[in-house]
Amino acid sequence: MVGNKAHAARALAALSMLAFIPAAPAENRMPANENGYEAWLRYRPITTIDTTTDTTTDTTINRPTNQDISKALSSIHVAGAGPRHTAALDELHRGLSAMLGASPSIDDDTRELSGGLYLGTRTDFEGALPSEIAAMLDDIGPEGYVVASVPNEAGTPAIVVTADDDTGLLYGAFRLLRELQLGADFAALNIVDSPALPLRMINHWDNLDRSTERVYGGFSIFDWPNLPESQPRYRDYSRLMASVGINGIVVNNVNTYKEGRLEGWRIITDEYLDKAAVLAGEFDRYGIKTYFSVNFMSPILFGDLDTADPAERSVQNWWRDRARHIKERIPSFGGFLVKADSEGEAGPHAYGRTHSEGANMLAEALAPVGGVVIWRAFVYRHPEESRGNADRAVQAYEHFAPLDGRFADNAILQIKHGPIDFQVNEPVSSLFSGMPNTNLMLELQITQEYTGNDIHLNFLAPFWRRVLSFDTHRDGPGSPLRDMLQARNGSSTAWGVAGVGNFHDGLNWTGHLLAQSNAYAYGMLAWNPRQSPETIAGDWSELTFGRNPDVAGKIADMLLRSYEIYSKYYFPYGLSLMGWAGGAAPDGNGDRSRPDPYRNIGRYHQTDAIGTGYDRTIATGSGYVGQYPEPLRETYESPQTCPPEMLLWFHYLPYDFEMPSGKTLIQSIYDDHYEGVDMVKALRRDWLSLEGRIDEERYYHVLGKLNLQLSEAILWRDVINGFYLDMSGVPDAAGRVQALDRPYRGLRYGHGPR
Amino acid sequence: MVGNKAHAARALAALSMLAFIPAAPAENRMPANENGYEAWLRYRPITTIDTTTDTTTDTTINRPTNQDISKALSSIHVAGAGPRHTAALDELHRGLSAMLGASPSIDDDTRELSGGLYLGTRTDFEGALPSEIAAMLDDIGPEGYVVASVPNEAGTPAIVVTADDDTGLLYGAFRLLRELQLGADFAALNIVDSPALPLRMINHWDNLDRSTERVYGGFSIFDWPNLPESQPRYRDYSRLMASVGINGIVVNNVNTYKEGRLEGWRIITDEYLDKAAVLAGEFDRYGIKTYFSVNFMSPILFGDLDTADPAERSVQNWWRDRARHIKERIPSFGGFLVKADSEGEAGPHAYGRTHSEGANMLAEALAPVGGVVIWRAFVYRHPEESRGNADRAVQAYEHFAPLDGRFADNAILQIKHGPIDFQVNEPVSSLFSGMPNTNLMLELQITQEYTGNDIHLNFLAPFWRRVLSFDTHRDGPGSPLRDMLQARNGSSTAWGVAGVGNFHDGLNWTGHLLAQSNAYAYGMLAWNPRQSPETIAGDWSELTFGRNPDVAGKIADMLLRSYEIYSKYYFPYGLSLMGWAGGAAPDGNGDRSRPDPYRNIGRYHQTDAIGTGYDRTIATGSGYVGQYPEPLRETYESPQTCPPEMLLWFHYLPYDFEMPSGKTLIQSIYDDHYEGVDMVKALRRDWLSLEGRIDEERYYHVLGKLNLQLSEAILWRDVINGFYLDMSGVPDAAGRVQALDRPYRGLRYGHGPR
Repeated sequence: MVGNKAHAARALAALSMLAFIPAAPAENRMPANENGYEAWLRYRPITTIDTTTDTTTDTTINRPTNQDISKALSSIHVAGAGPRHTAALDELHRGLSAMLGASPSIDDDTRELSGGLYLGTRTDFEGALPSEIAAMLDDIGPEGYVVASVPNEAGTPAIVVTADDDTGLLYGAFRLLRELQLGADFAALNIVDSPALPLRMINHWDNLDRSTERVYGGFSIFDWPNLPESQPRYRDYSRLMASVGINGIVVNNVNTYKEGRLEGWRIITDEYLDKAAVLAGEFDRYGIKTYFSVNFMSPILFGDLDTADPAERSVQNWWRDRARHIKERIPSFGGFLVKADSEGEAGPHAYGRTHSEGANMLAEALAPVGGVVIWRAFVYRHPEESRGNADRAVQAYEHFAPLDGRFADNAILQIKHGPIDFQVNEPVSSLFSGMPNTNLMLELQITQEYTGNDIHLNFLAPFWRRVLSFDTHRDGPGSPLRDMLQARNGSSTAWGVAGVGNFHDGLNWTGHLLAQSNAYAYGMLAWNPRQSPETIAGDWSELTFGRNPDVAGKIADMLLRSYEIYSKYYFPYGLSLMGWAGGAAPDGNGDRSRPDPYRNIGRYHQTDAIGTGYDRTIATGSGYVGQYPEPLRETYESPQTCPPEMLLWFHYLPYDFEMPSGKTLIQSIYDDHYEGVDMVKALRRDWLSLEGRIDEERYYHVLGKLNLQLSEAILWRDVINGFYLDMSGVPDAAGRVQALDRPYRGLRYGHGPR
Repeated sequence: MVGNKAHAARALAALSMLAFIPAAPAENRMPANENGYEAWLRYRPITTIDTTTDTTTDTTINRPTNQDISKALSSIHVAGAGPRHTAALDELHRGLSAMLGASPSIDDDTRELSGGLYLGTRTDFEGALPSEIAAMLDDIGPEGYVVASVPNEAGTPAIVVTADDDTGLLYGAFRLLRELQLGADFAALNIVDSPALPLRMINHWDNLDRSTERVYGGFSIFDWPNLPESQPRYRDYSRLMASVGINGIVVNNVNTYKEGRLEGWRIITDEYLDKAAVLAGEFDRYGIKTYFSVNFMSPILFGDLDTADPAERSVQNWWRDRARHIKERIPSFGGFLVKADSEGEAGPHAYGRTHSEGANMLAEALAPVGGVVIWRAFVYRHPEESRGNADRAVQAYEHFAPLDGRFADNAILQIKHGPIDFQVNEPVSSLFSGMPNTNLMLELQITQEYTGNDIHLNFLAPFWRRVLSFDTHRDGPGSPLRDMLQARNGSSTAWGVAGVGNFHDGLNWTGHLLAQSNAYAYGMLAWNPRQSPETIAGDWSELTFGRNPDVAGKIADMLLRSYEIYSKYYFPYGLSLMGWAGGAAPDGNGDRSRPDPYRNIGRYHQTDAIGTGYDRTIATGSGYVGQYPEPLRETYESPQTCPPEMLLWFHYLPYDFEMPSGKTLIQSIYDDHYEGVDMVKALRRDWLSLEGRIDEERYYHVLGKLNLQLSEAILWRDVINGFYLDMSGVPDAAGRVQALDRPYRGLRYGHGPR
């Protein structure tokens, strides 16, 4: 570490000069254009302008003034020199320089805490840490941190960022910067924090040709054809992910084999490991382990074996050797993610082995290198397999519940939040209630496959929080899902949550700028599932658009309304697959004779002339309800007690069913769709009121998306209502709904991207 | 054909009832929502509402009233019964029913032309055609038609749609419907028309997995995985294309081989021919022949030969057999499109054969089935090949000009309009001046690869018209490009124009609704290259948004300004490849050491600290200018005479070069970018003025796109200006331009799709 007092002095001088430049009158200041690339790590100057007159996006910390902060943070004293120390120091230097307008000096003098910022792990400080700070570290465990102000006789407090490990240190640095951006009183900092869930992962559904699956608006960030050449973007991506606590990234799509594609199974061949090593190096610097989606048939695909039978010694050895080889090449290798015996991805069933036998073989191969195998539970039968229950929702449970207790300690079952497939409204999967003796991970979808692509504003935190808070009753009442994602059996690296990422190579990362909020919220909830969506939305809005409460408050409010709005005009009452690829397609492609479930979407909502919805009751339906323990079973079994947002997910109901509102079901569907469109109009009006208070580039970008959303919402309203009019023959009481004048067949009703 | 007088009577009765329904007051009528699927074949009612009070999108034909039209068009009398007769009849029935509110009766009584609509070829009519009409047919040739009113003693004229062939008949039917939509006086119809260019093709850059290359906003229309199952969409696509005169469709991407992709070369395997036959059947019904992009190595790829050498008898036989096989399976098979020895697509050079030897071998194979081979001239060297001229612009000419006169009669060379690659501004390729003894086709790009993707409004007709009108001086002064795309050597099926299509499976076909105008304009110009962009824009706007002149006129005006606006803020003065994939990327990926030309975009504009632009002069540059005949050579050689929009395409100029305006080059670049953004703001304001006069769904859709365009334009302005500030060190005289605070490397500055 280099002390640079002269530099610091120059910087301070520059700052004092700046302080004398009078601010332009508010009405003349047009916010500078921004493109969104910096996302929530914008580090705009912390000004002293009074909020009451400021119309720019960046406002104020009134107490203390930035001169005080500048003084306290004009020097960074760092103990220790690991890669994450460097990353933390880089980030602090970058952030403080930008926020305070002057670069802090850096030295390694941490013998005594006088003024300035002190950075190091407990060990690094070699006893220089005040005992009250050291005591704060005692309970926090891995990745936790302390960010605290220590009063100083000289008047300017010392600020300490410390942890037990260097990843915690990095998280602490990001936390300090965030607090400063959000206007915290730096003299009163006293933060002790640590993550609730040990594994906080991003799954990239990215292919090796840079195409992506369900990631909207751009190519994969990972430029495989040009790797191992590096790009600055890899570091910026790592910074953004680490800043919200992500500690694991799966770099390639779970679909690793598709005829005629550049197959993702190549990821663990030497050619691609060389490329991945560059990414892994950047990730590791930011405390992120690297994982790979692998194909179960790899020993055949590119080994020279003629079997992938997990019971074969040759296969076991092959995987063990490969795991060791990967670990040698990529020291921060974390393990494998596997989609097996699902949607064309082969698996152990080819050899008459079970999922647990397959997973355990890989777990055993990974154990020597400290890795885990994450096995996806997204398994269902193809409809042409006539045996058994035809309801896709029941099938994962049928596959996996009998295997409870049979998975190895370093094997984790990754379960989508709902039993179908990331629909707008689904109950929490019954598997979470039914596998008490298995390591479980929750899979959420940050990218908006069924929740709006990059067109519709849809802040998912309220929904995710509901999922995380869901009482599974696995261990009796009071067994919220969030608790069972935490460490079990004393292991501390084994489970948590995976989110299918929404970042791509477009300049603002997510296509729709406001969709960045979902990546941010995902990180926040993975760290602390009890955080309120209101706090997350508010913080994100201030970080992204500045602290003017009129601006950030309005945007946060828009985010918080958006999920309910979307639900109103898309899939009502928990109906599944009324559309795909960003379009409404209530009848799928209309060809009910074909076996491919993706193309016969109507089978998922079971609409006919009498009613609509999927009967999953025990009494008359598929029996899925029976996979839950009581009292969930009783709650879901009756339409009178079933939560309204999942009414048609669990029940087939006649169109004249009386809803709690007193309206018929069909009229509720009609009305909701009109209400949803009106609510999008209100969203749009809210944004219009921000004209001139947000820079033009971001203002018109978001306004453009909101207009497109409104157009799509009108389309979906008319298509879904028209479909119901056609199916039910029941006219809209208000006379608004018109019949569709086109066949549904072969048409997907969306102007959107894909 | 079925006579149905009772039906007609009922329909007329219904119409008269309708006529008594009073129109709602203008202020209460909100236009009904539309989704754009019908495109320009909307067939909305022809009302009698006075334009001065009508605020809906559909207005008026004042003369004669619709009652008169209804009477005249209440019956269709059709002679002949071929597939295209049926298509024409279907379309007339559909169109007239919708426009007049009543279905016309249909019969086959054409012995005497009393009142009604008469449809049939000259032969079909067996002498019943009035001699003055028959005489009109004498000069029109294939695909031409007559649409004429014949006065009738009963007071209501007969309307005759006739032609020498049934494709002409179909075109005549579409023409009549268009004229009625546009308010023509049906009693004065007297149209004789025929296409200027024999081949009017669409090239689909669609892959067999439904992904597309440079087609924005959706999947391929052609659902290969589910073909040969048909979809109504295939017919609607055929209708739209036939309605603007398209008579050839290449169904698959010219890139037929890419490692790890579902390779397009499979298209002529039996499996895919079965699928393609369904599409070809729909196309043929609408007079459209089906073509396939093939891989030159096919005899090896799926034949059982071990060579594809065009000089080998076995190879020649293989292709001849395959062509015959295809023709048997698909009677409307038109031929092959070939990209060979170009960007990874193999070709005859592998065997030491020339392009013409390769093309002629295929031509010979296709001759027995009446097919043509279309050989693409998009060939350039990879930069790592050090021999020869490094300027990509010169290379196609170097490859092909020496082969002039060596191509077979049924071989056509398809040449992109400019020598680089569909840039915003390029000179017309020198190949058009240099190959007088070769069949040539022009390749245009309807899809907006470098011209705005599906975000930017960019009506390309003004640019295309300029290209088509360009005087190549091939045969001395007065050799416009359009003339040399017409028949030569007496053959009538051999050349014309190909457009890379922009239609995909999104509901409105083109992602950006207004981008439909480019497909329409392409068809119009292929039919008649002398048509004015103003007429095309005006007609399209009326067909799409109705005949209210305040609405359609404003939209047409927006279209007509859009190309110039886009040029202002994207690639100034003919600079090439300042960006890609919908983003600005003035330095490419910044890694100049790599051989891949796609990734080193800076090499195409040659910007450095002194100046910018590519020197292609004879005196000091790459010598590309020397490929033109005089006086083009002299015009382009000097920056004083070079057209300003191509100044930097031909010349490397210092930043202080004095432009015609008196400003320096660098200041012009800065100013243009600001002006461009202001012009987008004006476009947006124009659209805002249409609120309430266009249905909400289309209004907000387009408004959304315009807002996104504005945001992107601001971004590009700031990126490209910032790049020039960085490179030149010359500050903006107006003090607006700021340095970029991010490295260019690895970043593509666009929020857009891909």
